[in-house]
Amino acid sequence: MARKLYRTAVVGATGAVGNMMIRVIEERRFPVADLTLLASARSVGKELSYNGTAIGVRELREDSFAGLDLALFSAGAGVSRRFAPLAAAAGCVVVDNSSAFRMDPAVPLVVPEVNRDALRDHAGIIANPNCSTIQMVVALKPIYDAAGIKRIVVTTFQAVSGTGKRAVEELRRQCAAVAAGAEPESSVYPHPIAFNCLPHIGPFLDNGYTEEEMKMVNETRKMFGDPEIRVCATTVRVPVYYGHSESVVVETCRPLSVAAARELLEAAAGVLVVDNPAENLYPLALNAAGNDETYVGRLRGDPSVANGLALWVVADNIRKGAATNAVQIAECLIRDGLLRVPAKN
Amino acid sequence: MARKLYRTAVVGATGAVGNMMIRVIEERRFPVADLTLLASARSVGKELSYNGTAIGVRELREDSFAGLDLALFSAGAGVSRRFAPLAAAAGCVVVDNSSAFRMDPAVPLVVPEVNRDALRDHAGIIANPNCSTIQMVVALKPIYDAAGIKRIVVTTFQAVSGTGKRAVEELRRQCAAVAAGAEPESSVYPHPIAFNCLPHIGPFLDNGYTEEEMKMVNETRKMFGDPEIRVCATTVRVPVYYGHSESVVVETCRPLSVAAARELLEAAAGVLVVDNPAENLYPLALNAAGNDETYVGRLRGDPSVANGLALWVVADNIRKGAATNAVQIAECLIRDGLLRVPAKN
Repeated sequence: MARKLYRTAVVGATGAVGNMMIRVIEERRFPVADLTLLASARSVGKELSYNGTAIGVRELREDSFAGLDLALFSAGAGVSRRFAPLAAAAGCVVVDNSSAFRMDPAVPLVVPEVNRDALRDHAGIIANPNCSTIQMVVALKPIYDAAGIKRIVVTTFQAVSGTGKRAVEELRRQCAAVAAGAEPESSVYPHPIAFNCLPHIGPFLDNGYTEEEMKMVNETRKMFGDPEIRVCATTVRVPVYYGHSESVVVETCRPLSVAAARELLEAAAGVLVVDNPAENLYPLALNAAGNDETYVGRLRGDPSVANGLALWVVADNIRKGAATNAVQIAECLIRDGLLRVPAKN
Repeated sequence: MARKLYRTAVVGATGAVGNMMIRVIEERRFPVADLTLLASARSVGKELSYNGTAIGVRELREDSFAGLDLALFSAGAGVSRRFAPLAAAAGCVVVDNSSAFRMDPAVPLVVPEVNRDALRDHAGIIANPNCSTIQMVVALKPIYDAAGIKRIVVTTFQAVSGTGKRAVEELRRQCAAVAAGAEPESSVYPHPIAFNCLPHIGPFLDNGYTEEEMKMVNETRKMFGDPEIRVCATTVRVPVYYGHSESVVVETCRPLSVAAARELLEAAAGVLVVDNPAENLYPLALNAAGNDETYVGRLRGDPSVANGLALWVVADNIRKGAATNAVQIAECLIRDGLLRVPAKN
């Protein structure tokens, strides 16, 4: 029997995440009938390769979604806010990588390893979580299921690719400038990122936290369906191209030994435990880059609190943190018979 | 009246910290009668500049300390273990930057802003704390005095200069290799540090923590004289040349508002508050490098726990984290009339 194929669009196809969505669709042999690449008017004329064929980028317009089954959006929250509802109204299911709908109670926010069941309630739009949240919840899911989670203190080491292609170029240029004895020039970030750490990701809010930090608080609660989980996040940009690293210190509700946590993590979907300090083996951004797993290591008890565990979590922020998770959501929609926009009540 | 001058030695003078000790002695016009530069035999013949004069490096020997008043050691724990007691026995007071004596109950471990009084009990050797601990306790001292500290969760972003000159060169070479499209070669660290984060500083211990992490636990307790303070540390090497950054999340014993903490920090010795997110102002390693202050910013309440505060602490690891703190200890010894080896009971 021929496999059913789906008319699919990537919105924001020329961006770092959009590019990677095309790669991941290829790699995973996602059942595409016809791939439509959409972007703003200034990208029209560009061609991108898909399975060896050059596909021209088309302008994203209000009528772009007629006849499509699925659109993966990664073009910023403003574009999603305007076009995702139009796509859904046209019968095209949207998996949206922006922050536009993540906290909308009517929109499922999904990491398949964590809360695939939430897809059942979608009304045409599914939100893909923030990169730094995705890898943390993948690592914490088996711990949460076994022992509950009371509090998380997380500090991130985030790669510049999360900001986009211009930030990758900025880091490259700044490194070259420093090597040549010149002053590094900054335009993407307010300060040099080369050989520096910026405790500033996303705008600052009135409570002293950044938007990125509050995403880690709110998205974690929403995905675990547990508003009681307490999270203190510090999100930091570091001079790394690909791969976010995270220091995660967690207080479970019930006791969970390190050995039991390790066993659960080793069996967990999407997790690869790399944790052999005697051999200098622990998760590293350079090793995670290009892979889809969430790497967990430095697993140890935290004797500074009852039921404390500490771990080090690393993943490719453009893949599992964005493109791969979005494609995985689409795969789940197909498998669960949910790749259709339900009729309104 | 002529100022009294002290015959002073720097042991490990050719290293990154030893070099900086000479610079700090110059800058602060430390009252040196005669500067002796000591190192291993293979550095003999080298000359180092001090106040515009070239001084030849001499071999560190058992009889190097006769007639000296003060020796600043930064040549590793093995050298300190062997030679510091010989120096003290010869009447020369030692300020030791290694880990050799830090946890010795008979040796004061001192950051002048935190526990200057502990110098009174010295018996000839004073230990300089670990770089990552020094800046954390400087920032936490006013908070501790006002509200007590129950628990600290700290994650560090540590510069390669803390490892020494070879690590600085390794990062430079690796960046050049990556820019040229080549594989970075590692010899100082077990993995590339360029564009990567290594959650591994110092050897791993049986409890899953590294020595560096346990230094932050044990030295903090010793300096505050409070074995009840609980600390969970994750120490990480990042591709930064100079300046350690730290994400510090603290739970005080008694309530302390953010406004009150800010006021205390602004008045605290050795602390510079840089905390104006609206203007993108927060502590940065690149800005701290070359300065002696401990920079504190991103100060905010941590609503995930009772009496929670979060802050971002940055200092130059070679200066306040090592050389400057050692020279400050020596200055305190002079001012307090303690620059002499007390007779044994």
